[in-house]
Amino acid sequence: MEHRQEVSKAVIQRLPRYYRNICELKAEGAQRISSRALAERMGLTASQIRQDFNCFGGFGQQGYGYNIEKLQEELGAILGLRAGRTAILLGAGNLGRALLNNFNFSASGFELLCAFDASPELIGRSFGGYEVRDAKELDHYIDELHPDVAVLTIPRGNAPAIARSLVERGIRGLWNFTGEDLHLEGLGVPVENVHLSDSLMTLCQLVGMAEENED
Amino acid sequence: MEHRQEVSKAVIQRLPRYYRNICELKAEGAQRISSRALAERMGLTASQIRQDFNCFGGFGQQGYGYNIEKLQEELGAILGLRAGRTAILLGAGNLGRALLNNFNFSASGFELLCAFDASPELIGRSFGGYEVRDAKELDHYIDELHPDVAVLTIPRGNAPAIARSLVERGIRGLWNFTGEDLHLEGLGVPVENVHLSDSLMTLCQLVGMAEENED
Repeated sequence: MEHRQEVSKAVIQRLPRYYRNICELKAEGAQRISSRALAERMGLTASQIRQDFNCFGGFGQQGYGYNIEKLQEELGAILGLRAGRTAILLGAGNLGRALLNNFNFSASGFELLCAFDASPELIGRSFGGYEVRDAKELDHYIDELHPDVAVLTIPRGNAPAIARSLVERGIRGLWNFTGEDLHLEGLGVPVENVHLSDSLMTLCQLVGMAEENED
Repeated sequence: MEHRQEVSKAVIQRLPRYYRNICELKAEGAQRISSRALAERMGLTASQIRQDFNCFGGFGQQGYGYNIEKLQEELGAILGLRAGRTAILLGAGNLGRALLNNFNFSASGFELLCAFDASPELIGRSFGGYEVRDAKELDHYIDELHPDVAVLTIPRGNAPAIARSLVERGIRGLWNFTGEDLHLEGLGVPVENVHLSDSLMTLCQLVGMAEENED
């Protein structure tokens, strides 16, 4: 599918939002939706949506709109949600445990296998049904089970070195919560750097703008 | 500042990334940067950056680029990071505690005042220096201290009702981790809905695309 290599990062990042909204629409019992209604729901333009979907062959029918079930399957396939990929989680501190207890990894395309930590108080315990293994076992575990991606909920400072060693051992993607940016160019694998501060700063700005509108 | 009302949501969401990168550059000792170098660093185009900054009056000088110190101040002012806004956090479970222990609220524009929870095991304890107060005291606390925003790290199910009651009591923005989307139109205040699944699904897609490129 050569045309997929030309899909921009901006479109790639919109696809999960589309998927999430389609899943909600399905749960609400909707069977179809026009690009205009979807655009309104998502705060986009209908032409943006059509343009985005056309990158993947287009899914709608003139006069009908999009079939929700079909769109969910197509988007799910593009996102690779059913490709059977696996993940491990490094760092069972508060944030790691929050993900283990509450985050639905499989709905986002990954079966979480287990967690790793160096702390004796955490090793051997389970959170959300996932076992916390000794960090000393990590290399061996990766060699035996070949997890696809690693979730980094470890403290700042070690992330670049740990990331390099994971990639050398075959890890093919990183979900990075450490706050230290890791880069594809440096590592050779995709990285999603999560920056919660971006979201809160956006809120700060929006609250300020709402104040100005009151004056 | 009327022109700010015309700034698109897309630009608003890019500003925190600009600010974060400028802060990193400053920490690296840089004093100035060209729009081209900034674009390369951030995976954007130089013209996008210039266009974005022109929404706020433009900050650079032809031939010089941008002064990092000045840009940090200007962006910080636009984001409202020094406007003295305050926040409270509802729900001191794992995710709430992860934020209390590790997240730098003031660097994102908000002084966090305290947390609230209904659980006797958590009430009266401190995490990251923040006290967990009894959820029963919440209404009174808001009436007395008028926090600007609330961070919702409570379970799904209650979010819409709790959000409405917070807004009625004067809360002016919500940072929503519950997974249930809350909407500005329904509430009348800005809401940042955090969806970690969007980020992991993006990673899933990128890992799949990297596999295809290997074939």
